[in-house]
Amino acid sequence: MSTTIRALASDDRHQWEGLFDDYAAFYKVTPPEGFKDRVWDWIFNPGEAFWCDIAIDDHSQTIGFVQYQLMHRSLGGAKVCYLSDLFVDANKRVSGTGRRLIDHVMQFAKTNDINNVRWLTQDSNKTAKQLYDSYVAQSEFVLYSVPVHQD
Amino acid sequence: MSTTIRALASDDRHQWEGLFDDYAAFYKVTPPEGFKDRVWDWIFNPGEAFWCDIAIDDHSQTIGFVQYQLMHRSLGGAKVCYLSDLFVDANKRVSGTGRRLIDHVMQFAKTNDINNVRWLTQDSNKTAKQLYDSYVAQSEFVLYSVPVHQD
Amino acid sequence: MSTTIRALASDDRHQWEGLFDDYAAFYKVTPPEGFKDRVWDWIFNPGEAFWCDIAIDDHSQTIGFVQYQLMHRSLGGAKVCYLSDLFVDANKRVSGTGRRLIDHVMQFAKTNDINNVRWLTQDSNKTAKQLYDSYVAQSEFVLYSVPVHQD
Amino acid sequence: MSTTIRALASDDRHQWEGLFDDYAAFYKVTPPEGFKDRVWDWIFNPGEAFWCDIAIDDHSQTIGFVQYQLMHRSLGGAKVCYLSDLFVDANKRVSGTGRRLIDHVMQFAKTNDINNVRWLTQDSNKTAKQLYDSYVAQSEFVLYSVPVHQD
Repeated sequence: MSTTIRALASDDRHQWEGLFDDYAAFYKVTPPEGFKDRVWDWIFNPGEAFWCDIAIDDHSQTIGFVQYQLMHRSLGGAKVCYLSDLFVDANKRVSGTGRRLIDHVMQFAKTNDINNVRWLTQDSNKTAKQLYDSYVAQSEFVLYSVPVHQD
Repeated sequence: MSTTIRALASDDRHQWEGLFDDYAAFYKVTPPEGFKDRVWDWIFNPGEAFWCDIAIDDHSQTIGFVQYQLMHRSLGGAKVCYLSDLFVDANKRVSGTGRRLIDHVMQFAKTNDINNVRWLTQDSNKTAKQLYDSYVAQSEFVLYSVPVHQD
Repeated sequence: MSTTIRALASDDRHQWEGLFDDYAAFYKVTPPEGFKDRVWDWIFNPGEAFWCDIAIDDHSQTIGFVQYQLMHRSLGGAKVCYLSDLFVDANKRVSGTGRRLIDHVMQFAKTNDINNVRWLTQDSNKTAKQLYDSYVAQSEFVLYSVPVHQD
Repeated sequence: MSTTIRALASDDRHQWEGLFDDYAAFYKVTPPEGFKDRVWDWIFNPGEAFWCDIAIDDHSQTIGFVQYQLMHRSLGGAKVCYLSDLFVDANKRVSGTGRRLIDHVMQFAKTNDINNVRWLTQDSNKTAKQLYDSYVAQSEFVLYSVPVHQD
C-alpha cells in the first residue's frame, strides 16, 4: 500500500470536511458555526499564508491532512513554519502516513528557505509523540491558551 | 512605583535593543546577524501583523516588552493572538509588570474580537508559570521544534 | 468651521455606512451583497493592511472618509501606499476636507517610511483633479480593468 | 515558434535579473540599491501575495515576465488582482507573448475566484494599448503618484 501527498484541491471539499470533523471530534472540540467555510477560505485564498496537503491511499481515499502556516520567530529574526493541524484517519491508517505528511511540510520549509518547523501535541498522546521523537527531542515549552471573553 | 504600557515608538530603538539582547541571553540563544533589524521592521511595517508594547517605569526606563502576532487556529475557525515574546528586566523589575504587559495584549484581543491569547513557556520556569497560572491552567500541549537544514 | 481627521472607530458604523453608500452611488456602482461587512472587516482586522480615516465636522457629523492600503511597487523595490477610496459628502462639504484627508494619508506614509502615495481618478472629474494637481502633475498612466467571468 | 509560461523558479535568477533591468530601462527608472533582492524575496516568500511568471521561447530563453499581486477593492467588497509588471524583450519578442502572459494571470484569477484583473499603462504606449484594448476598453481612470519626502 502506498500514499500520495498533494496539495488540497477544490474538488476535495467533501473528503476534507469529513476528515476535519473527525479531527475536531478527536480533540473533543465543538467548533463554531461556519468554521469549515473559514478554514477552506484560508487554504484557497492566495492572500493567506495557510496551506493544506492531503494524503491519498491507493484506493483514492483521502486518509489524512496537514495544515501549516507561517509565524514570526523573533529570536531567529525569521518566519518559521507552524504545522497547526495533522490528522490521519485511524480506520484507514496506512503505516507511515503521518510521517509522510510531516516530511512534506519539511520539504516545503526547505524549498522556501524556512529554517524551522514546529508543532504542538498533547503530552499524553504517546502514539503521536513516538513519531515526533524521531524528528527531535520534545522541547521544554508548554502552551498556555487563554480564552478572551468579549463583554 | 508605577509602570506605563504603550506601543513601541521609533525613538525607543536603543532601549528596545538592550532589552532584546537580554531576552536572547535569558534563553541562551545566539540569534543570527541582523535579527534585530528584521524584528524592528516587522514591528513598524504596517503590512506585518506583529506588534510590540513596552513597559516604562516612573524613571522613564524601559523595563520590559511584549511582542505578539496573529495566527490561524483552524479548530476555532478564527485567527487568535500569539504572544511570542515577553520579557521584564530582572534588575529593574517592578512588581506586576509582566501581568500588565499580558493584560495589555488581552485588551488588544478584546478590542479586535479575537477570542484567544496564547503563549509558550518553559516547563521549568516556575516564576513565569506562577503568573501564567493565574490566567488559566497550563494546557497539555508541548512543543516540538525541528531545525530545517538547508543543503 | 473646522474638521477633525481620525481613524474610524467601531462606534462609527452607521455613519460610515451612509457615506459608503453615497460613495458607491457617486460612482454609479452597485456593489455585491455584503460588501460593507467585508470592507468593515478589512478595516478592523489587524491582519489586513487596510485602513480608514474619517473627517468629522464641528457638529460631530462624519462628512468624509479615506481608505488606503499597501501595495508592492517592484521598480521601487518597496511597498507604497495606495489610496483606494476618498469621498466627501457634497452637501456637508467643508472647504479643504479632501485635502486634509489626503494629507493624513501622506503623514501616515511619512511615519511609516513609505516613499510614495498614489491614487486613481476619473479623467473627467475636474473638481477632484484641481485638488490633486496641487500635489503632483497627473501621470501618463491609465487604468485597464478587466472583469473575470467565472464559468 | 512557441512560448511556455510558468512560475519563476529559483534557478531563473540570472535571466530574471536581465529582464528586470531591461524593464527598468524601458521606463527610464533608476531603482534604488538592492531593489532586485527585495522583489525576489517578495516572489519567493510564501507570506507575500506577489507572484512572477515567465515566458520561455523554444530556445529556452526567458523572453518576458509578468508580476501580479492582490489588492483590496472596496466597491467590490473583494480582493482583485493587480498586474503590476509586464515586460517582453523587444529583441526576442515572439508574437503573442504579452497576451499569453496576461492570459496566464487571467487564469490565476479564475482559479482563485478573483473577479477582476487590472493594470496601468502609459497613455502614449500605443503598442501595449493595442493589445490591452482587445481585453477591455480603456477606463477613464488616470493615476496620480506623489513622492513622499522623508525629512
